[in-house]
Amino acid sequence: MTEERLPSWRPGAARNTILEYLDGIGDVPVEDRVAYIDNDGTMWCERPHYVQLDFFVDVLRQRSSHDPSLAGRSELAAVLNNDTEAMDEMGLERIAIALAGLFDGQTPGEFASAVDTFIGRYRHPTFNTPVRSLVYQPMLELLDELRRRDFTVGIVSGGGTEFVRCVSPSLYGVPPELVVGTLIGYQFARCDHDRPLLRRTVSLMGKANEGAAKVEHIQAQLGRAPIVAAGNSAGDREMLEWANAGPHPGLAILIDHDDAEREFAYESRAATFDETEPITTIADRLGWTTVSMAGDWTTVFPPPS
Amino acid sequence: MTEERLPSWRPGAARNTILEYLDGIGDVPVEDRVAYIDNDGTMWCERPHYVQLDFFVDVLRQRSSHDPSLAGRSELAAVLNNDTEAMDEMGLERIAIALAGLFDGQTPGEFASAVDTFIGRYRHPTFNTPVRSLVYQPMLELLDELRRRDFTVGIVSGGGTEFVRCVSPSLYGVPPELVVGTLIGYQFARCDHDRPLLRRTVSLMGKANEGAAKVEHIQAQLGRAPIVAAGNSAGDREMLEWANAGPHPGLAILIDHDDAEREFAYESRAATFDETEPITTIADRLGWTTVSMAGDWTTVFPPPS
Repeated sequence: MTEERLPSWRPGAARNTILEYLDGIGDVPVEDRVAYIDNDGTMWCERPHYVQLDFFVDVLRQRSSHDPSLAGRSELAAVLNNDTEAMDEMGLERIAIALAGLFDGQTPGEFASAVDTFIGRYRHPTFNTPVRSLVYQPMLELLDELRRRDFTVGIVSGGGTEFVRCVSPSLYGVPPELVVGTLIGYQFARCDHDRPLLRRTVSLMGKANEGAAKVEHIQAQLGRAPIVAAGNSAGDREMLEWANAGPHPGLAILIDHDDAEREFAYESRAATFDETEPITTIADRLGWTTVSMAGDWTTVFPPPS
Repeated sequence: MTEERLPSWRPGAARNTILEYLDGIGDVPVEDRVAYIDNDGTMWCERPHYVQLDFFVDVLRQRSSHDPSLAGRSELAAVLNNDTEAMDEMGLERIAIALAGLFDGQTPGEFASAVDTFIGRYRHPTFNTPVRSLVYQPMLELLDELRRRDFTVGIVSGGGTEFVRCVSPSLYGVPPELVVGTLIGYQFARCDHDRPLLRRTVSLMGKANEGAAKVEHIQAQLGRAPIVAAGNSAGDREMLEWANAGPHPGLAILIDHDDAEREFAYESRAATFDETEPITTIADRLGWTTVSMAGDWTTVFPPPS
């Protein structure tokens, strides 16, 4: 009697590919068993808004009630009004820097405390559930399988590194040093009795963590290339290609959000050949393993605890 | 019968302080048990030259035999001539960027391979031993003790992150993601058949990793403050102070190079109150645990294997 592996995955091509890949991993040295998994839309639900965006909106509402001028800044106005078109046009880096201004000068502890408080009272706008219930149960099982094979598992995000670090240990069992996101620079300072402390700045260390930058930042921060990568959007494309570019066989997993009934149905497109190509088409072309949420997962979210 | 702890440490104040600290760690949550240990002069011998400097000199000699113009660049000339005064004057950042130019465009694998080849034939200029024999045996035992108490142990270096990552797993059991040094930025690129790859740039991501920058970079890359820190020079000062600045009791360890017979005797000074103060004096003032190599260690280097 062996414990069933990937119990929330329906028997089929995706589950078979993953299990066969993991069964064949024996020849790969443990130090090369590295998996990077995107966060928003891959580990947890990113619709109707990114959880971190809700956090920013929450902070912005509180702050702008005291300082109405904040809402006059175009980047912040776009966030407050959930104007995704304007946000897309401005780009993640410009938005990230504007939002970083809200936390300028905070210590890492102050920022983490603000996130923890928000996460504690967060409920998803349509499911009315806490963050723990937005995590995809099948992906937690995949993380378990990877660790059973001695993989080092990192979480990669276009969102803020320090935001994701507040949830990655408890939700995914991933320690802070294995989170690679958009990174704020710090300034060393001294307070009372000369005690050292760190303050957040509004400068990014590196770039907004999307696309090719994900690959650059992972190498810089973690120092190892993946052989397994999972993502769901055009911003994960380069990271997924990277998993297949090394000396060992790779496994690139694309989560396809095709489940309007249990989650959300939407499509991510990437610019290729000067057109925008659905990421699922790219996946087929490049030999990735596409996971249909509707077809391949018997369960999407963990059972209520 | 219990295995002797810290067997290469002579009974005395330093060993007692460390063991008493570790015996009292039970109340500290495991996720807060974090130790950062400087590399050069703390984990391994840094005299008469940094091992990484010997690597650069080695590469420079090979390259300048084909391209004599290299030696005309003042930063590279200072390195080639081991002109420490000129190097100190130019500063670590300027030297680091000039040296990074030697590896501009290399992939992480190409760089690692050059380091591995060098390390494989390296012999210390006066001891005539390989790098494994330059590691301080008592520090390896300290790492063992920390891990026995479920500490996460990171290695921090003013040297290049990717250089240290080539030795940290085998010498210290520290994985690449737990190395924080001076960090080169990468550029995502594509080669034959559109395969993605990374190339080294000559831009630093962040600053040269010394002093206050060590603290800033550790937070950014790893996300956790230390409660134990060890170092040996003025460039470690802020990191050691940081270990004592958190909510839990900290342990700041200074390695004092006072053993001309078995290693080297030298002193590091930091600028304080507009004067330069020996780091050992600062240690006394701030309540750090100073370790005398001559007095506190029965063995400095591991027995020949």
